[in-house]
Amino acid sequence: MPGTWTQSALIVGTGLMGTSVALVLRSHGLAVHLDDRDPAAVKLASALGAGEPRDSTTPRVDLAVIAVPPAAVPAVLVQLQGEDAAATYTDLASTKAGTQRMIETLADPTTYVGGHPLAGRELSGPGAARLDLFSGRPWVLSPSEHSTAAALGRVRRLVELCGAIPILMDPHAHDLAVALVSHAPQVLASLAAARLVDAGPDALGLAGQGIRDVTRIAASDPELWTEILASNANAVADVLAAVATDLDEVVRALRAAAADPADPSAIDPVTAALQAGNRGRAGLPGKHGGPAASWTPVPVLVPDKPGELARLLTQVGEADINLEDMRIEHSPGQPVGLVELAVRPALAEELVALLRSLGWAVHW
Amino acid sequence: MPGTWTQSALIVGTGLMGTSVALVLRSHGLAVHLDDRDPAAVKLASALGAGEPRDSTTPRVDLAVIAVPPAAVPAVLVQLQGEDAAATYTDLASTKAGTQRMIETLADPTTYVGGHPLAGRELSGPGAARLDLFSGRPWVLSPSEHSTAAALGRVRRLVELCGAIPILMDPHAHDLAVALVSHAPQVLASLAAARLVDAGPDALGLAGQGIRDVTRIAASDPELWTEILASNANAVADVLAAVATDLDEVVRALRAAAADPADPSAIDPVTAALQAGNRGRAGLPGKHGGPAASWTPVPVLVPDKPGELARLLTQVGEADINLEDMRIEHSPGQPVGLVELAVRPALAEELVALLRSLGWAVHW
Repeated sequence: MPGTWTQSALIVGTGLMGTSVALVLRSHGLAVHLDDRDPAAVKLASALGAGEPRDSTTPRVDLAVIAVPPAAVPAVLVQLQGEDAAATYTDLASTKAGTQRMIETLADPTTYVGGHPLAGRELSGPGAARLDLFSGRPWVLSPSEHSTAAALGRVRRLVELCGAIPILMDPHAHDLAVALVSHAPQVLASLAAARLVDAGPDALGLAGQGIRDVTRIAASDPELWTEILASNANAVADVLAAVATDLDEVVRALRAAAADPADPSAIDPVTAALQAGNRGRAGLPGKHGGPAASWTPVPVLVPDKPGELARLLTQVGEADINLEDMRIEHSPGQPVGLVELAVRPALAEELVALLRSLGWAVHW
Repeated sequence: MPGTWTQSALIVGTGLMGTSVALVLRSHGLAVHLDDRDPAAVKLASALGAGEPRDSTTPRVDLAVIAVPPAAVPAVLVQLQGEDAAATYTDLASTKAGTQRMIETLADPTTYVGGHPLAGRELSGPGAARLDLFSGRPWVLSPSEHSTAAALGRVRRLVELCGAIPILMDPHAHDLAVALVSHAPQVLASLAAARLVDAGPDALGLAGQGIRDVTRIAASDPELWTEILASNANAVADVLAAVATDLDEVVRALRAAAADPADPSAIDPVTAALQAGNRGRAGLPGKHGGPAASWTPVPVLVPDKPGELARLLTQVGEADINLEDMRIEHSPGQPVGLVELAVRPALAEELVALLRSLGWAVHW
């Protein structure tokens, strides 16, 4: 598609996301120009090899990537279109419907295709940028009815160059989805962490990996997240209201169970909530994009000696059985480790038979 | 203290926790006997090197470790004491006050010291057991006024052999603390995950590391957790009721912000909740430095073809480098996977040099 071929790009906002995109485009030989309201951020991004600072001599580019917070996207787009800075425009903001509505009022929506790469790190700024930040990650594209095919082609090409998986999604459906899988969980992590504010050192000393994981993203930037949540407020409120209903029911069941320990059914709503949590968690896609549960784990006992694991995997490889995943369960000094080989379900029986014929202890 | 020296142990309940304790005691040369209502669990634990199945010839041991759910502890203790199975008894259950009360009524409390190692995994069963599960972790000991010094000495010795940090705590204070740092977070993780039950594949496809972390422990066993939560119901309900109050306020603020985007202060309670989350998270003490954290990950690119992984591990094994752990990361359509080989830090440089000399792409 020569008409949509992209040879030059302008990145506005050289933080983590914008700089990572710039690094990718430079690695593919595009001319990349960098802009940010903070000149130090542009300078660092440029020093990292992300491109050249934009100045008055910068020509019109094929693609402008607006990598600023959601609320700032429409204004930046209006300004760039006013300067005729690019043939096509996209953004990386984490909500899409409100931006799309504003752009249809304020800007030229034909040359714009909204985007949202589902990628990130707890670190921020150009110094945290990575060439592989988007590799294998979903990247939502939300073209509107006004977007031209050429604009969509250019933005899709950007996603492909970044090694991400383009997913076409209506802006509204996108916002509901991220409310569920990203924005509401952020609030819940913060509320779980907020309970620790008044905890004494004795209680905090008992904290384990569980609460550390539940609250990891509670360390995120409150200003950035206020902007994100405000830009998707009703969708997030809907999810959280449903959580509040579940939570009230769990609290009532716990009080009832405490009041009457002899009534075994009083606690049932708690079990139901935990079981629903099991089901919801199991629905999260695995590393390969398919449901995690679709690989069959085959547990094998492996002596903790150099070479044993390799011998096991060599024999599996020689039988042309492709491992989808693998997990080692053992710790230093433990005489025998349990290795879980994950394969496609159709291959599991064959793998078990092979390993047993070779003398491995398979727990099947 | 020869009077409290422990040379033999009985583990009742060979799940994750019991089997991990058994592995530690075996590694220190103790005679370890294993019992479980599920004979297959005993068999697997024994095959992993955790000890011998208990039978009618098993002698009276120095220490019995009751590794069953909280509600089952008193009955198991009564039975073991009836058989004069051990000189000293402890348990690993995650609540202490209710058990202590029942034991004072039903059993001989002099030879019992309640314990709770703050360690675990979302995996369960003997196959998930690890020699280093308790390493550097807090292990609460809740002796009662009836417990003898000899019993406390033996149980404290167990904690030390496991490499854990003994913390003396009143049973009631313990239960309030774990409600805050463990039991309430478990419920919140489950409720966050439960919201995903009705999510479509499009929405689930956008899930990132954040929700995976928040919901990791939602994969835990609902039956086990129902028992734990029921045994600490009022304390957990108090924490969750406070979360419910915060949650209602966040939902109200999001609705207000959506209704009047021109009122910038409408969203302020959301910012306050996120900031409180920052403070609570920051209050969590640093890790106690378990061995897992001390392994060095070496990321290697591996083509997604049968035999490639085996070839890699054969070469590592031939160089006598022992892998401590391994993780495979790769994504749909990606021809190359990222494999993280975890080794002792002292071996990392050698491994990197070896792999590079053999032509592997190491991201180091």
